[in-house]
Amino acid sequence: MEKKAGKEEAEAVELLGKTVENKQIIFKGYIEGIPKETDMELRIGKKLKLEKVPKGSGGLLVKNLYLSCDPFMRGRMRNFTGSYIPPFIPGEVIEGFGVSKVLDSDNSDFKPGDIISGFTGWEEYSLIYKTEQLRKIQADDIPLSYHVGLLGMPGFTAYAGFYEVCVPNIGEYVFVSAASGAVGQLVGQLAKLHGCYVVGSAGSKQKVDILKDKLGFDGAFNYKEEADLDKALKRHFPEGIDIYFDNVGGSMLDAALINMRINGRIAICGMVSQQSLSDPQGIHNLIQLITKRVKMQGFLQSDYLHLFPSFLEDVTSLCKEGKITYLEDMNEGLESGPSAFVGLFSGKNIGKQVIRVAHH
Amino acid sequence: MEKKAGKEEAEAVELLGKTVENKQIIFKGYIEGIPKETDMELRIGKKLKLEKVPKGSGGLLVKNLYLSCDPFMRGRMRNFTGSYIPPFIPGEVIEGFGVSKVLDSDNSDFKPGDIISGFTGWEEYSLIYKTEQLRKIQADDIPLSYHVGLLGMPGFTAYAGFYEVCVPNIGEYVFVSAASGAVGQLVGQLAKLHGCYVVGSAGSKQKVDILKDKLGFDGAFNYKEEADLDKALKRHFPEGIDIYFDNVGGSMLDAALINMRINGRIAICGMVSQQSLSDPQGIHNLIQLITKRVKMQGFLQSDYLHLFPSFLEDVTSLCKEGKITYLEDMNEGLESGPSAFVGLFSGKNIGKQVIRVAHH
Repeated sequence: MEKKAGKEEAEAVELLGKTVENKQIIFKGYIEGIPKETDMELRIGKKLKLEKVPKGSGGLLVKNLYLSCDPFMRGRMRNFTGSYIPPFIPGEVIEGFGVSKVLDSDNSDFKPGDIISGFTGWEEYSLIYKTEQLRKIQADDIPLSYHVGLLGMPGFTAYAGFYEVCVPNIGEYVFVSAASGAVGQLVGQLAKLHGCYVVGSAGSKQKVDILKDKLGFDGAFNYKEEADLDKALKRHFPEGIDIYFDNVGGSMLDAALINMRINGRIAICGMVSQQSLSDPQGIHNLIQLITKRVKMQGFLQSDYLHLFPSFLEDVTSLCKEGKITYLEDMNEGLESGPSAFVGLFSGKNIGKQVIRVAHH
Repeated sequence: MEKKAGKEEAEAVELLGKTVENKQIIFKGYIEGIPKETDMELRIGKKLKLEKVPKGSGGLLVKNLYLSCDPFMRGRMRNFTGSYIPPFIPGEVIEGFGVSKVLDSDNSDFKPGDIISGFTGWEEYSLIYKTEQLRKIQADDIPLSYHVGLLGMPGFTAYAGFYEVCVPNIGEYVFVSAASGAVGQLVGQLAKLHGCYVVGSAGSKQKVDILKDKLGFDGAFNYKEEADLDKALKRHFPEGIDIYFDNVGGSMLDAALINMRINGRIAICGMVSQQSLSDPQGIHNLIQLITKRVKMQGFLQSDYLHLFPSFLEDVTSLCKEGKITYLEDMNEGLESGPSAFVGLFSGKNIGKQVIRVAHH
């Protein structure tokens, strides 16, 4: 799977100067409700000549290899500038996390042939000028696509959220929703490795089986088959929940609140069930925060970036030792992007939703 | 106002052996919705002979001087045993915080004439066997009734909640709801002394005036006159809110969530607007917890009792130095108990709601 750096560089040099068809996925305009495939469109644009990056620009010309579908991107489809990240621009290429190969560089931190991860465009080739958050990937045995999943933002979200926000203790009862998703699957496995009792919820029998059989969860249930989420949680947590890693919000959060133990902690992450609602579902059981002295905390992984190096070291080791498994839902070709992204909101994916733009 | 300890003891001795009419307020039965006066009744019971406490019982015979009306007592009117405190028993005397004079003692920590605070009955004379949480009050210049308010559970709730849960920084923007209440008025004053900018909400013009003119709040508003709480908060906090000390829950909490600043903290205390609702109002804006990385924490003062001695020292000093004002709504006579308690839920009281059972 891995090729030598020299080979990567040779390919980069070879592409430079060529004229390519640069397929792009365009954001059509601001939306309400659940994203639809028609909110995006494939543009097979004018031919692009892969020229050297202008001197003094500090930029990079890259070939995109993998793109990441993440629920937070839904937030950028609203015309709202007050968030932590600006909205997409209608008519422009969608932006997201990706893994890319550097073809040319005017930045001394990167050279042709380097494989990098960070923000890029949903297109085959991108010119990147915002280079501060790009990271060079060291070649090893781990699939490159993991750098937008297990070893990227979702994995780091799980790591920072679980250790820093949930502050787990050995033996505690941990509940994870959207447990087979990009974040949830790592939260559950870290919790098991930490000595916790872990139950996850997901939206299909297949996902539930994977949680129990492949990811080592102590229990799992299909929330779509539970008439009463409170009862489902009571069945799985007769002693109550110490830590709820909430990836969905909504009625699952309400049910979890009733089942929290004293001094419990709830990490609020993503709220995927609520991302698309202009009038989000009401949460009715917050009074439980008082009676059970529960701490509920929203967080963004970007506030914990000082921990990224130790995350990368820890999780890379665990992965290489076979102590952590990571499920990906790989979608072939840039064309599959809109459908893959939309699938996030219907729970179509099993594991991290990734688009393979190019084999390298 | 204060009498010498010898005088207190003489009075105690004088009462012992007498037969008295022991008026009581009885809890009639479990309720739903907002408490009504008719949920309680005055019982002018059989005559009671004030006899010495049985040897070996460890108990106290007390004459009750002041009783406290607190919102948490509403929770004890439900037939629900899963809370941090058991429900009241129908047909029995209501229990609550009070200030009492010891008439006789079988407990070496207390002697006749001592003035104590802690749990007692809503009646003129009580036999108390649960003595662990009783506290002997040192006679000084502070009104005795303050020991169920400023220097009692509500004051300590303000102190622990503000310093331990909100973790304030100098210059931060602090919002307090139910700001003229037993807890809120101290939160606001502690925040001012800490160097914060403080705005409070309350339910009448008179209360708003008091917040600004007597308690030194930087701003205040009458929530009943605001058509849009979000707009009211934006007017008072154009820069947003760092700390929200939430005494009410419901729509005020929802509006505050929209106005939180990054890394804001919300202390959830009491939720008086929700105490009486069997189907509490939904909170819709929790997604703000993520985008603003807000920590929202429920708490009970009883988890922080190790801080009680420093609280008592600090707040007693501030009170004696005139740096803190405390408003009481004094109700005369045990008979006034049901109306005083019910008034808590309509916002009738200005300041701490207290019942004076006996002048001493």
